[in-house]
Amino acid sequence: MIDRLIERITEMDAPVVAGLDPTMAHIPGFIKENAFKEYGETLEGAALAVKRFNFALIDALADIVPAVKPQAAMYEQFGIPGMMVYRDTIAYAHEKGLIVIGDVKRGDIGSTSAAYANAHIGQIAVGEAQYAPFDEDFCTVNPYLGSDGIRPFLEACEEYDRGIFVLAKTSNPSSGEFQDRLIDGRPLYEHVAEKIAAWGEDLIGTCGWSEVGAVAGATYPEVIKTLREIMPHTFLLVPGYGAQGAGAAELAPCFDADGLGAIVNSSRGIIAAYKKDEYARFGEEGFADAARQAALDMIEDLKTCRAHA
Amino acid sequence: MIDRLIERITEMDAPVVAGLDPTMAHIPGFIKENAFKEYGETLEGAALAVKRFNFALIDALADIVPAVKPQAAMYEQFGIPGMMVYRDTIAYAHEKGLIVIGDVKRGDIGSTSAAYANAHIGQIAVGEAQYAPFDEDFCTVNPYLGSDGIRPFLEACEEYDRGIFVLAKTSNPSSGEFQDRLIDGRPLYEHVAEKIAAWGEDLIGTCGWSEVGAVAGATYPEVIKTLREIMPHTFLLVPGYGAQGAGAAELAPCFDADGLGAIVNSSRGIIAAYKKDEYARFGEEGFADAARQAALDMIEDLKTCRAHA
Repeated sequence: MIDRLIERITEMDAPVVAGLDPTMAHIPGFIKENAFKEYGETLEGAALAVKRFNFALIDALADIVPAVKPQAAMYEQFGIPGMMVYRDTIAYAHEKGLIVIGDVKRGDIGSTSAAYANAHIGQIAVGEAQYAPFDEDFCTVNPYLGSDGIRPFLEACEEYDRGIFVLAKTSNPSSGEFQDRLIDGRPLYEHVAEKIAAWGEDLIGTCGWSEVGAVAGATYPEVIKTLREIMPHTFLLVPGYGAQGAGAAELAPCFDADGLGAIVNSSRGIIAAYKKDEYARFGEEGFADAARQAALDMIEDLKTCRAHA
Repeated sequence: MIDRLIERITEMDAPVVAGLDPTMAHIPGFIKENAFKEYGETLEGAALAVKRFNFALIDALADIVPAVKPQAAMYEQFGIPGMMVYRDTIAYAHEKGLIVIGDVKRGDIGSTSAAYANAHIGQIAVGEAQYAPFDEDFCTVNPYLGSDGIRPFLEACEEYDRGIFVLAKTSNPSSGEFQDRLIDGRPLYEHVAEKIAAWGEDLIGTCGWSEVGAVAGATYPEVIKTLREIMPHTFLLVPGYGAQGAGAAELAPCFDADGLGAIVNSSRGIIAAYKKDEYARFGEEGFADAARQAALDMIEDLKTCRAHA
């Protein structure tokens, strides 16, 4: 799957993933009103609003960005109707040719991790039949439980041609509480990065990158440089662009001379662009066009920093 | 909620939680056959089998154990129908007076962690209405992202009288890869434990225990002793009894002079007891009675070690 991701990034010249993390506050009023008219102020009503919002965003983005990253929490919070929209969003994104990174940050051990892997990037057997319940192309995974938790995901990557991004250094302010603590003189995230590189060693695609990627916050450019040295074949999923404070300059270390090496996420910066002064001209009704314009602007912005790589 | 958990543990003299982690392999053939007759070998069919299995187990266990712990992965792997059974299992367990610990091991940052907290132990607003999507009493949380990821769960604990168990030291063989690495001369899990104690400081119930508990594997009795010193008010959720190798002797350090301090989980050892020689007399049809007997035996076994505490 990493080969396909690289191919799409190259074709579109856009190492960008649009984070589909809708909250009620991001969704234009008219969409919510219509959905509530049909289902009332219920979880079903909220889920329908999310679905319409997402589908319009996917239509507006599918020919300019290679991938979308729905954040599972934002769907899970609307219960079963929310999870149905999570599933439907993935299916619709696939229909439109997008690669889907499920931001689930699951992590458990043994048969339990296998169940999560089955749910998201693998398949589950029911009698003689096989199903791919959520069917993401990639998903994010938490490394705290060590190799036992990761191995079932690696098996699913191999068997179903999928990929994962393992949390190395996250972009939040308190990420340092544990991730930056020194072990043998080096921060924990470097030790995690070593493991990530090892986990991905046997899963390197023809593109030279591994199916096992890493999540690394763009808010720490020095960190990115070190991580790149430790993990030369590990593609990065980089949150923190825009809303979380990192600009194109901070991102330069993510990219190699070919402009490859990372896919940068923007969530609110794209999906809620219509709420920013910069894109206010699109109006609430034009939220999808505003998202498209914000994505195009982000792609241009990233070209600058990739040129300096 | 921790007060209610302690109360139930004391009433029943049973610091035991039954892990509802059903896989297709655990479910008796006749239940699967009947479910597949109705829905075919589909996710709906699998989910129906899980539901009937769980409900029978809940009926057999509700008057002898204080709590059940459904493992979200085992439901998520059956997609939407699986998640519906996760929700229904929680609701049915509540109907029968059981406390529910949702083993979701979620962990993210800021608004995303808040969404997970809303989904599992909190509520979500849709217009003027409020919903509790999955409505567990406790859930498990991953600490790798630090305080940013935990704070929204603490807020939900306070607002909705719920609790969490944060992963400190897990019971799997590779848990040491990161959790045991030394930081300032002490393993990472001790640093995590210090944070867990601090996160729970303002949420101590009248029972003297905090709403913020910790997950600590019973396979490491020395670890339990140290964790107890670092976290004197932190109730432990202890996996690893039975199937994972820990017996009552290893568990003694979990308990104080009152026999309190921890709730010990057994999953396969209870729900798949009918497959063990020891309980084979119950037969496949008697799987729920076998589960009940296994739970009663576990409660007796724990009394021994609690007496030595």
